[in-house]
Amino acid sequence: MSPSVLTNPRAERVKAVRALGRRSARQRAERFVVDGPQGVREVLRFAPKTVTDLYVDGAASQRHGPLVDLARDANIQLHQCSSAVMAALVDTQHPQGLVAVCRPVDVSVEDALADESGFVVLLAHVRDPGNAGTVIRSADAAGARAVILSSASVDLYNPKVVRSTAGSLWHLPIALGGDVTELIAACRERGRRVLAADGAGTTLLPDADLSGAHAWLMGNEAWGLNEASRAQADDVVRVPIHGHAESLNLALAATVCMYASADRSSVKRTS
Amino acid sequence: MSPSVLTNPRAERVKAVRALGRRSARQRAERFVVDGPQGVREVLRFAPKTVTDLYVDGAASQRHGPLVDLARDANIQLHQCSSAVMAALVDTQHPQGLVAVCRPVDVSVEDALADESGFVVLLAHVRDPGNAGTVIRSADAAGARAVILSSASVDLYNPKVVRSTAGSLWHLPIALGGDVTELIAACRERGRRVLAADGAGTTLLPDADLSGAHAWLMGNEAWGLNEASRAQADDVVRVPIHGHAESLNLALAATVCMYASADRSSVKRTS
Repeated sequence: MSPSVLTNPRAERVKAVRALGRRSARQRAERFVVDGPQGVREVLRFAPKTVTDLYVDGAASQRHGPLVDLARDANIQLHQCSSAVMAALVDTQHPQGLVAVCRPVDVSVEDALADESGFVVLLAHVRDPGNAGTVIRSADAAGARAVILSSASVDLYNPKVVRSTAGSLWHLPIALGGDVTELIAACRERGRRVLAADGAGTTLLPDADLSGAHAWLMGNEAWGLNEASRAQADDVVRVPIHGHAESLNLALAATVCMYASADRSSVKRTS
Repeated sequence: MSPSVLTNPRAERVKAVRALGRRSARQRAERFVVDGPQGVREVLRFAPKTVTDLYVDGAASQRHGPLVDLARDANIQLHQCSSAVMAALVDTQHPQGLVAVCRPVDVSVEDALADESGFVVLLAHVRDPGNAGTVIRSADAAGARAVILSSASVDLYNPKVVRSTAGSLWHLPIALGGDVTELIAACRERGRRVLAADGAGTTLLPDADLSGAHAWLMGNEAWGLNEASRAQADDVVRVPIHGHAESLNLALAATVCMYASADRSSVKRTS
């Protein structure tokens, strides 16, 4: 192996990257980790200037040559490393040979609400990383203008959230907001109706008014939205359950709601 | 502990239940396992006669008294067991103290297609247990008449599939079919249009004809539907992607498609 290849899994540099698996270390360093070719490709395409370092093992150098070239062209610091170092960089079962260290990409709540058309998504107290990431991916697919996470939600830069977004983290504005009450107020000040999605809602989704600019408020996966948030919303909407199922999970219900928004505005656009 | 409590995790009876984690043992015994209060509650509500045995530990006996009473009233064989036995019965990280041994509930393809209204779902080569179970749960919620799994799909009675259905396994007819070609033909013979859901489809979901009886054909999570299946379908439909996301995952795309079916027929029903 050439002397420029990192081979010591206990090197300080390697430990510093691995530490970014913890929220406290991410906040201190103002960096987070993107693991695997899908995420690395998307950050290089959409936000290359936020990437500070790219770690690549031998197999990935060969398999993902164009990605590595892209990083080189963007003047990103490249580190060839052994598979032992790759395994030490991130806490995943099957490291995929590419790890990028990146700067945060979240925007202010004000910027997230700058576009006053269409719909945005507010995540209130969403704790499960897979759910949060999946909702961000769906929001991207359904054409949301932005996603805003309340302060009580899971950390956007948690590696599982980053992975579950499947690259959507870099596709639309995402803001890290304060408490839910403030976020609802901020949406309404900018002319958005706030629709709380909740299994206890009285308005069925097909009957909800999605014609103007609006914000979908999605609650915690286990206990939904609290009474105060529901009372503050302009309407509380539930996805109809036609069979005997008790409910849909958070990501599914959120996706159905967002596609209803997308569908009705696209129907309008084409008619 | 009373002498009627099972305390030996290595007893033959305990090993026989644990073996049902493997497909071959399930097929030999014609039994499968339902783990945890949600699944046990739903099978006791919707198909009590298919439950042969219920294993309960001390904590669950107290917490889920009404469920245990329900099982007793249905003449199901009750086995009190120690927490060590409970942990040995199933291969889950956090046993929840209730394990039922049940007979299969799948129906024939003919029976699944007996109701010729609304929509059904065909799962072709769906391999991931969580995806299969989640689609069954969504199909229930969206009001599908039935779900049919092709022979190349994951086993319906895989413990992870059973858990992911969140009880919907017992809420609507589910059939285990042969190959996809036969299933498509069977649907069309009974007057159903077959709509293949595929990211490569030319018809956008909002433009798809969902007015008559139809069948949604959903492909594998990794490589979608093969050319032959797409060619055999009456239409190939894609969920519109409005942002930069590459795709939605299988369960999300399937749920959006099924709710489009439900929504348009409910709009008709109420207008």
